[in-house]
Order: sequence, then C-alpha cells, then structure tokens
Amino acid sequence: MTHALDDADPLAALRQRFVGAESPLVYFDGNSLGRPLRVTAERLGTFVEEEWGGRLIRGWDEGWFDLPLKLGDELGRVCLGAAPGQMVVGDSTTVLLYKLMRAAVAARPGRTEIVIDRDNFPSDRYVAMGVARECGLTVRWLDVDTSAGPGLEQVADAVGEQTALVALSHVSYRSAWIADVEAITAIAHDAGALVLWDLCHAAGAVPAELDVWGADLAAGCTYKYLNGGPGSPAFCYVAERHLDTFTQPIQGWMGNTDPFLMGPDYVPVDGIRRFLSGTPAVVGMLAVQDMVALIDEAGIDAVRKKSEQLTGYAVELADEHLASYGVTVASPREPSRRGGHVTLHHPRMQEVVTTLWERDVIPDYRDPGGLRVGLSPLSTSYDELERGMRRIREVVAALA
Amino acid sequence: MTHALDDADPLAALRQRFVGAESPLVYFDGNSLGRPLRVTAERLGTFVEEEWGGRLIRGWDEGWFDLPLKLGDELGRVCLGAAPGQMVVGDSTTVLLYKLMRAAVAARPGRTEIVIDRDNFPSDRYVAMGVARECGLTVRWLDVDTSAGPGLEQVADAVGEQTALVALSHVSYRSAWIADVEAITAIAHDAGALVLWDLCHAAGAVPAELDVWGADLAAGCTYKYLNGGPGSPAFCYVAERHLDTFTQPIQGWMGNTDPFLMGPDYVPVDGIRRFLSGTPAVVGMLAVQDMVALIDEAGIDAVRKKSEQLTGYAVELADEHLASYGVTVASPREPSRRGGHVTLHHPRMQEVVTTLWERDVIPDYRDPGGLRVGLSPLSTSYDELERGMRRIREVVAALA
Repeated sequence: MTHALDDADPLAALRQRFVGAESPLVYFDGNSLGRPLRVTAERLGTFVEEEWGGRLIRGWDEGWFDLPLKLGDELGRVCLGAAPGQMVVGDSTTVLLYKLMRAAVAARPGRTEIVIDRDNFPSDRYVAMGVARECGLTVRWLDVDTSAGPGLEQVADAVGEQTALVALSHVSYRSAWIADVEAITAIAHDAGALVLWDLCHAAGAVPAELDVWGADLAAGCTYKYLNGGPGSPAFCYVAERHLDTFTQPIQGWMGNTDPFLMGPDYVPVDGIRRFLSGTPAVVGMLAVQDMVALIDEAGIDAVRKKSEQLTGYAVELADEHLASYGVTVASPREPSRRGGHVTLHHPRMQEVVTTLWERDVIPDYRDPGGLRVGLSPLSTSYDELERGMRRIREVVAALA
Repeated sequence: MTHALDDADPLAALRQRFVGAESPLVYFDGNSLGRPLRVTAERLGTFVEEEWGGRLIRGWDEGWFDLPLKLGDELGRVCLGAAPGQMVVGDSTTVLLYKLMRAAVAARPGRTEIVIDRDNFPSDRYVAMGVARECGLTVRWLDVDTSAGPGLEQVADAVGEQTALVALSHVSYRSAWIADVEAITAIAHDAGALVLWDLCHAAGAVPAELDVWGADLAAGCTYKYLNGGPGSPAFCYVAERHLDTFTQPIQGWMGNTDPFLMGPDYVPVDGIRRFLSGTPAVVGMLAVQDMVALIDEAGIDAVRKKSEQLTGYAVELADEHLASYGVTVASPREPSRRGGHVTLHHPRMQEVVTTLWERDVIPDYRDPGGLRVGLSPLSTSYDELERGMRRIREVVAALA
C-alpha cells in the first residue's frame, strides 16, 4: 500500500527501522508506549552476552556509571534544548517529580503554595498534593478546559509572593495542548516562583528549549516518543544556576561525593548527579539511547514537522468523515498549539475503543469520552493513519 | 578441567546456564553483579520483538501491570519466606528504603530515634540520616566490628520506647556476617519499635524467613544473587499486618486506587501495590524472573548448602595458602553466620585487586584492605574458585 503523503515524506523510510512496521496493525498509541526499534531487540541480546555477561562488574567503570549523565546530555542536545550537565536519566517520572518538587519547595522557604492545574497528569497532581501536605504548603488548583491548558492570565492571577512552585505540563496528556512555556515561566519568575515542566507527552515529538525558556526544573518519561520500552527510566533537568544549591531528599550512594569511598557522610556531589539516588537502570537506558540517536539522525525539527502534518491530516480526516457521526476534535486546531496526538470525543467513545482493539486498531481511551490518536512521528505512516481513521468511521457509523 | 568437588556437586550442571561459564575468567563478584543467564539474552530479544513490539500497549493488560506483584510473590515464595501479597518489585533499593523508612517513622509517631549500625551499606545510612533530619528524629548509631554485625546486647541497649525503627542488614556487605534476624526483631518489637531488614547481600544466596521472623519491613536489590542485570529494580516487603495502615510519601498513579480512572484524589490502593509510585520497569524484571525460576528449580536450601561449601572451601584455601603471606579471613568462620562471600584482608589489598583484574580474576575491593571473594552459588564452580585463589596467592606472594 502506498499513500501520496508517504511518498512525499522525507522521513518515510525511517518507519522500517521499527518492529512491526510491516504489520497490518494500526498503532495509535505511540504516545503511551512507543514501538521498539529493530536495533534495540538485537542490542539487548548483545548487551547481555557481551557487556553484562562479558565485562561483568567492569562495565561500571567502562561506561555504565556515566550513562545516566551521558544519555541525559544527549537527550538535552537532541530533543530538549539543554546544554550539557543539567540532565540525568533515572528512577520513574513520579520519583523524579517528587525529588524536584521537594527541591523546589526547600529552595523557596516561607512560600506557602504549589500551583498546578486540575488537568495535569495524575502523578503530577498526587505528588504535588503529597509534597504540599508534608511540607506544610497548600495546593492552588487551576481549573482548565480539558481541551486546553492554563491561560497566561489565569497563571498570572494565581501566582504571587506566596508561590513556591508552578508545576505544569508542556503538552497536555488529554488534549495535546501545548502550553506557552516561555511566557508562563516568565510570569512565575516575576513572582519569584520556580517552574517545573512535565515533558512526558512532548519529549521526542515536540522540541523543548529548556535553556532558552529559562525553565528551572523539568522531568519526563522515555517510553512514549523516546521508545524506551515499558517502564524505562525517566529523566530530569535542573537548570545550571540551581545546581549548587538545590538538593533532593532521597539520599543514596549514587548521589554522594565519591560513592565508592562509602564514607560516613552524605555530601551531595557537585552537578546534576546529586539528583540520582540508587544504582542506575542501565538495561532500561539502552533503547532510549537508540531512539535518541535516530531522532538525532532525523533532526528534531523534521520530526516535529512530520508530527504537525500527521496530526493535521488526522484533524482533516476527522472533520471530513467523523463529524457527521457526532465525533468532535478536542485537540487544538492550530498546529503550533498541538502536540503529537489528536483527541476525538464522542459520548460512546469507550465502547468504540473496545471494538477498535478487537479489529487491530489500537488507540487509547481517556475519560471523558476521549479517543487518543497517538501519532509517533517516526513510526507512523500516513497510510497507517488513514487506515485507522477509516476503521474508526466504520465503528462509529455502526453505533447508530 | 575437573575438580572433585564439582564432580560431587549436585548443582554443578546449572553453571552451564550462565553466560561466560566456559570463559577462563574467574568471576568473584557475583555478590555485586551476578552473571546473566543465557536464557535471559534470548528472552530480552524475544520480549522486544514479540511482547513489547507485538502486543504494544496491550501488554499492560496482559501481564505487565501485575508483574511487580507477581514477581514479588515468586521471590517471596522461592527465596524469602514471605506469603503472597506482601512483596513488590520496583524502583531502586535506595528509593524503597526511603519509602519504607518514611512509612515506619509515620507509623510510630512521637518516637524520636532510628537505630542503625555504622557499617551498614551507605544508602541505608544516608537514607536514615535524611529521613531522620526531615522528620525531626535523630539517628542512634551502633558501632560494630567490621567483621561482624551488631550483637544482641548492643541492640537491646540501644532500643527503647524512643525507638521508631531499627534498620539493619541481613548479611553485612563487608564481612558477609549474617545477623541474628529473629532475635533482633524480637528485641525491637519488645520495645515497640519496627524493624527494616536490608536483604541486598542475602537475597538469592541466603534464605530469609520474613514471615517466621516477624519482620516488619525489608528491601533489597535484584542484581546480585538474583542476576537481574545492572540497575535492575529492587524489591520490598511490608508485613501483611501493616498493609492497611502504612503509607509512603511518593504518591504516584501506580499506587493509587484505580490508576486508570486518573481521578482527582490519591487514595492508596489496598495491599502492597501502594508502595509503587511510577510505571514499573518491566524490561528490568525479566532477568530476575528467569533467575528466580532457576533458584526454584534448584531449591533455595540446596543453593544455600552449596554457598556454605563454596565459602568454606575458600576459607580453607585462604588458611592453607594465604595466611603465611599475612592475609587474614575477615568473614565469620562459622558457616551458619557467613553469607555468600568471603572477605580477605591485607594492608596492600587494593593493589592486589588491581593486579588480579589485569590477570582476569575479578573480585572487588572494599575499604579497609578487603578483597571480597563473591561466590554466586549457581554460577561458580569449585574449579573456578581454586583457580582464583591460586592466582591471589601468586599476586600476594609477589608483593613481598
């Protein structure tokens, strides 16, 4: 099957690098769990035989120990606009959010509020609630339309000299709304507050410019558009200007000065490594490394361009073929405000998704009534998109 | 090469299941990073192609979501004497120690001390210091001989109505001393304190009886005698009697009641799952699963028996061939008090280890002056042990 848009796509050939490219399955959930690269399957076997099995404990000296920082730097350079020395890979997103929020609250003593929106991802909200409670702060909630993020005025109204931290998402997990990161960061800074950006639903599809934006803190996962595999480790960013003074509460040997001395005291090591705690998940980082290399090869701007075109085409097909069945587009129509997925609403969408899964079309469902068409830019073809949208139409049409 | 003791070893054939079994390298560091199983190399490739790549997001419903608890239960049944529903796999040991210590301190309000020994592993000590500081407690340090753990009288003297938590290691990482877990737990309980056991240097080699001992909490890593690979996820145990009331501070979606509802509130889910926070490291658990299955096949008591014989033979060889060069055995001589490794002391041991590495004998070095002969019971042969000890003699003899 060929599709004119695939023929015109300069990145089309890269789809063949992914496991399952030849499968008739339509995969609309790369925004939740990206497809593996073929090279990763091979590499994990080789890693076990040659590196882990062959070098054994010597592997720590030969690269594993530095991998969390090295991969962090690569991620920063290729996808996130972060100069070296400010990013590290480890833990889960939730654990890193906890560390960063605790660091932020400690760095703004006397301030009493964490600002977060009600539509942020659950872990962000739950961590904020937990950190606020244990540190004696309160959470100030921003009410937002589920098809957009918080507006600038809304943020400006909420922040003030009581605000320790503003915690928001770069791309909304429900609607794919892209926040105005730079303007919001500036508003928070004017009030003396810190800002933590959750990049989970952006990293690898929507470029970030963490240094340019003046972000203080950021975190995200690597199993979505960074194709790290189920439960691969997360990443975090701490701006260089904060690295001397910010500390996190989970004091482990890997964040200590000279970990192998195993001395009596915990003295946070200089630099971003102090945000590590336990032994880094080396095997979990390998797939991420492969994907960051592929994005580097393609160029993040080209990836973003294809992402905009894919989601734009999805919106076009939805308008043309699904609107008459009562399906509405809940994601922004303006390409520059829309991340890597398109959310379609229908009151009976949960049963639509169930039927689609039975017919080998795999989107996911998010309350209320949202089907997410996740379009991982490098592994999704226009043909796959069109086949999936056609199938959605069939299922929605059969509801009536 | 054959060795009479290998010929008599009922588990000898299992060594062939490990990558590197045929290599002339002598590996004495399975107590730090276990060798991979051959089946793991194959399995990781298959997992990427078929499960991650083939089932994609559906894998979560088809087993990944339950894997942290399922593997926890297996580990509990096969190695640790824990009935189902009390163990979960996830995070790093450091992060789990943090969660457990916070849970313990919260469960003993008004008590002001955490008791820990100065020779405990760095992360245990650093986490205890951090948790004590942030929760307004103090650390009461137990001074111990580095070739033994804390004695019963010493613990009895230190605990009292001020003690919230006693945190000790089942097997000492330096000397391999096995603590009298049951008696120490009883002493702490008499004082109304909780006990947290670090099982890192025991799990998979020295059987635990967590339920029988009446342990409250335990945690450990899976990359030593459980052969999970560099940075594989950790495990924790929370006794069933505490599961209704203990909570941990890192409130993530995976520990919430009905995570996929993504609701406004964090309500810790019933059972051990509440000790999870973020998305579980599925790929990191596969190797552990393979090794737990192998230990199940061999039987943990048979593994322990071989471990005692291996370490006993190492002590015998050290006495016979190394004592005259000033090398002393720093591990317990009584087999029932000795874990899976034997620590040899010599003032110039650091340079001995450096030379040994150059000659393809890989132990590790721990201050002060300790060479650890780590003898992973299922992957180490008596022949390998004897070759390694001979090489140590050559290097030590050449020092003079």
